[in-house]
Amino acid sequence: MKIGLLGFGKAGKAVANVILQSSDFSLEWILKKTDTLDNLSAKDILGISSPDCATIYSQSTVDIKILLEEHPVDFIIDFSNENGIHHYGKVSASKQIKIISAISHYGENEVRLLKELAKETAVFWSPNITLGVNYLLFAASLLKNIAPGVDIEVVEEHFKTKSGVSGTAMKIAETLDIETDSINSVRAGGIVGKHEVIFGFPYQTVRLVHESISREAFGSGALFVAENLKNKQKGLYNFEDILRPFFFGETAKSFS
Amino acid sequence: MKIGLLGFGKAGKAVANVILQSSDFSLEWILKKTDTLDNLSAKDILGISSPDCATIYSQSTVDIKILLEEHPVDFIIDFSNENGIHHYGKVSASKQIKIISAISHYGENEVRLLKELAKETAVFWSPNITLGVNYLLFAASLLKNIAPGVDIEVVEEHFKTKSGVSGTAMKIAETLDIETDSINSVRAGGIVGKHEVIFGFPYQTVRLVHESISREAFGSGALFVAENLKNKQKGLYNFEDILRPFFFGETAKSFS
Amino acid sequence: MKIGLLGFGKAGKAVANVILQSSDFSLEWILKKTDTLDNLSAKDILGISSPDCATIYSQSTVDIKILLEEHPVDFIIDFSNENGIHHYGKVSASKQIKIISAISHYGENEVRLLKELAKETAVFWSPNITLGVNYLLFAASLLKNIAPGVDIEVVEEHFKTKSGVSGTAMKIAETLDIETDSINSVRAGGIVGKHEVIFGFPYQTVRLVHESISREAFGSGALFVAENLKNKQKGLYNFEDILRPFFFGETAKSFS
Amino acid sequence: MKIGLLGFGKAGKAVANVILQSSDFSLEWILKKTDTLDNLSAKDILGISSPDCATIYSQSTVDIKILLEEHPVDFIIDFSNENGIHHYGKVSASKQIKIISAISHYGENEVRLLKELAKETAVFWSPNITLGVNYLLFAASLLKNIAPGVDIEVVEEHFKTKSGVSGTAMKIAETLDIETDSINSVRAGGIVGKHEVIFGFPYQTVRLVHESISREAFGSGALFVAENLKNKQKGLYNFEDILRPFFFGETAKSFS
Repeated sequence: MKIGLLGFGKAGKAVANVILQSSDFSLEWILKKTDTLDNLSAKDILGISSPDCATIYSQSTVDIKILLEEHPVDFIIDFSNENGIHHYGKVSASKQIKIISAISHYGENEVRLLKELAKETAVFWSPNITLGVNYLLFAASLLKNIAPGVDIEVVEEHFKTKSGVSGTAMKIAETLDIETDSINSVRAGGIVGKHEVIFGFPYQTVRLVHESISREAFGSGALFVAENLKNKQKGLYNFEDILRPFFFGETAKSFS
Repeated sequence: MKIGLLGFGKAGKAVANVILQSSDFSLEWILKKTDTLDNLSAKDILGISSPDCATIYSQSTVDIKILLEEHPVDFIIDFSNENGIHHYGKVSASKQIKIISAISHYGENEVRLLKELAKETAVFWSPNITLGVNYLLFAASLLKNIAPGVDIEVVEEHFKTKSGVSGTAMKIAETLDIETDSINSVRAGGIVGKHEVIFGFPYQTVRLVHESISREAFGSGALFVAENLKNKQKGLYNFEDILRPFFFGETAKSFS
Repeated sequence: MKIGLLGFGKAGKAVANVILQSSDFSLEWILKKTDTLDNLSAKDILGISSPDCATIYSQSTVDIKILLEEHPVDFIIDFSNENGIHHYGKVSASKQIKIISAISHYGENEVRLLKELAKETAVFWSPNITLGVNYLLFAASLLKNIAPGVDIEVVEEHFKTKSGVSGTAMKIAETLDIETDSINSVRAGGIVGKHEVIFGFPYQTVRLVHESISREAFGSGALFVAENLKNKQKGLYNFEDILRPFFFGETAKSFS
Repeated sequence: MKIGLLGFGKAGKAVANVILQSSDFSLEWILKKTDTLDNLSAKDILGISSPDCATIYSQSTVDIKILLEEHPVDFIIDFSNENGIHHYGKVSASKQIKIISAISHYGENEVRLLKELAKETAVFWSPNITLGVNYLLFAASLLKNIAPGVDIEVVEEHFKTKSGVSGTAMKIAETLDIETDSINSVRAGGIVGKHEVIFGFPYQTVRLVHESISREAFGSGALFVAENLKNKQKGLYNFEDILRPFFFGETAKSFS
């Protein structure tokens, strides 16, 4: 299956890294905002040997319509920014290219556009696309469901310079319907990223902990989504939709 | 709902403690092996005020048939030992009293007897009856299902004098189909009990951790089972049967 | 060595429990505020067999001067309250009885009194008398000393109903000279007590963690202090004074 | 102060990275085994701008004697291999260049050579040169000293493919005089490296935990050693020698 990647920042590079090393997926091209790396291959920049093309283009010098015709893809994976979807959305959807977006925040306009596109193709959006964090959300809401009165607290740890509460911690609080007061943010040194959900029962404690090792986890997550989106009909999907079949014994492609 | 309790060792006492403090359940009596506390009330021994009778009888001085007639119960909760079920099983099942057994190990004879009794009443058996450990098993096997190739290791910590690998850790290994080599047993000081399942992915780690604070967790677990067994038909149930309805939106009574 | 204990609340009972089980120390008597248990033995109340007397007296019915004459002791261990020291301080100091106080907070008057008494006998005061917490303070300030610019955060976890930031966490912040903003307080279920000091370096993390299992830790700590105070001259001591000889190879009695 | 670096593997590169970013030290040159990068600058390879030269030479094409004359240094930091010391040891020592070796294992010959060289210059050797691990060893042996009878267990976690027990865990066991049976090795996914020493007391638990984030920690450690070796006389030093002055209030340069 052929993939076009939007974005080549830190996350985009890590995702390209994982796709290039996958034998099930081929990285056809990367589309980035600026033309500083035009026509180079991501393989050379990342130092990976692979049969994939992985040519880098820029939004300013290449017409997306022509790109999709000359180098057709099955999936677009979007690690660019809020505006990326305006650039490639309509033309991709009209060609039934499946869209996987990992953009952190979308405005109202973009959410409306996603819903529009979902009438023509399968559109997936998740602000945090790692399996681990999404499993955590799923498993935590299950326990909350079993024990609605349990005390829940969140501890999230990140590098010193990360400002504000982590988006993932906010999402956990929202999903579990707990106050943001219950989020404890530790900022120290170079901690990559850790989220811990503590369930305090009177006589026992359950903890769900996710630790990030590197951004490549975004790549594994995106490919896991692609595998499970492959045979999905048009519509708007999130990570929970991808995980649910594993509970109900429906056909689903496992994480590898 | 009325409860009869088998066993008054450390676990039995803790369970009695929790039932006596519950307003939904009444502890009618306790049946223990020896007659050292005959006709005393568990309330006095535990120092709890409660409207429940909680009279202590012994197997040697009281006929179980007469006990069940004079002091009828809806549930028998068994924290005695492997042989307890032979004492009360048949007569209880014939009266449709529901049976909740937390016995660690049963021989073949006892398992056969449980199946026999399950033809007449609802019979529940779980070697570890805490919600936390059973949730851990459930959530862990779900993640294993999503990511069958993930590396899994177990670390269990208990007090210095605990011999052998913990039964719960063995159960985790069996459920997740991993080698017992992957269980690491830490024995130090007075650690009450901790089980940690580590899922190591290439770029991220997920940990599920259960920590015991006190044996009263057995009592909460037993009452949670009782709540959810109340309307169940005859048959043999385990903890997974109790948890499954929470996934599928079926009616289930939450943990409190 | 003979011990008189002030206070018989939850902490006092746990301390009595440990002293009664020690073969190096004898619990002569317990002095409590109210006379509800007058002349009973702590051995019966705690269900421990021991050659110690451990008779319970009350401040209202027994004259401390007469008590110390009829039942002389080498140490007074104080788990009562702020005012206890006024009751036994002067008379004990005049008899060179060593004083070990574990009172959480003293007012100015009491601190002045302690200093006064320290001119006549060895007086020890520590608001948290467990070895673990004091070792943590010591080891943490050492690391801060080595790496003054390191990011430090504290996470403390306690049972849901504990109000305010834990006194121990405040003490850690004060000792390490960090803002109280850096203390994260988790309150959930029945967690007994956990303090974690996180040192975040750019490329590595060091964590010092103390977990409480039961109040008996106060008893072990008090006896460890007694052992090491035995040969000390008059003066005012804290836990750091007890730990320091272990660094410098001076004679010190190890913890057991 | 000027530094010459031996070795440019994964660890060597990370160390070069840290030295290049330090304003107190200048990376004069790097000496590696093979000539594949001859005469290139580590700055270009690592993408760092710095006033340092950081030229790469190879042992086969450059005479160490001439190198040290044309590009004199104050320190040699050795991240090469067991044999490196034979190449640069004698000539460096004769010029009173201080030697900092982070080689994991030395044979008897090399240890003898180190002792020989230490008669002429300050020679430092530590198989794990991070501050965190060495602090852990120091703090752990202190607690063992205070409480010789405490139960100690070690849990070390590393990436799946790491074979054998970690050298650091072996060192911890040796330092604390515990059986290697007490080391629990977890191997899963991409875990960078974690060492946890658990002290189990009857009523409390103390844990010392070190987590590695990246190999750059070796660089910080090496520079910390260099700072503190600067004014040291000839002799053989290890990390404990560097840490000890922080206890005794002697002059020492803190970690930054």
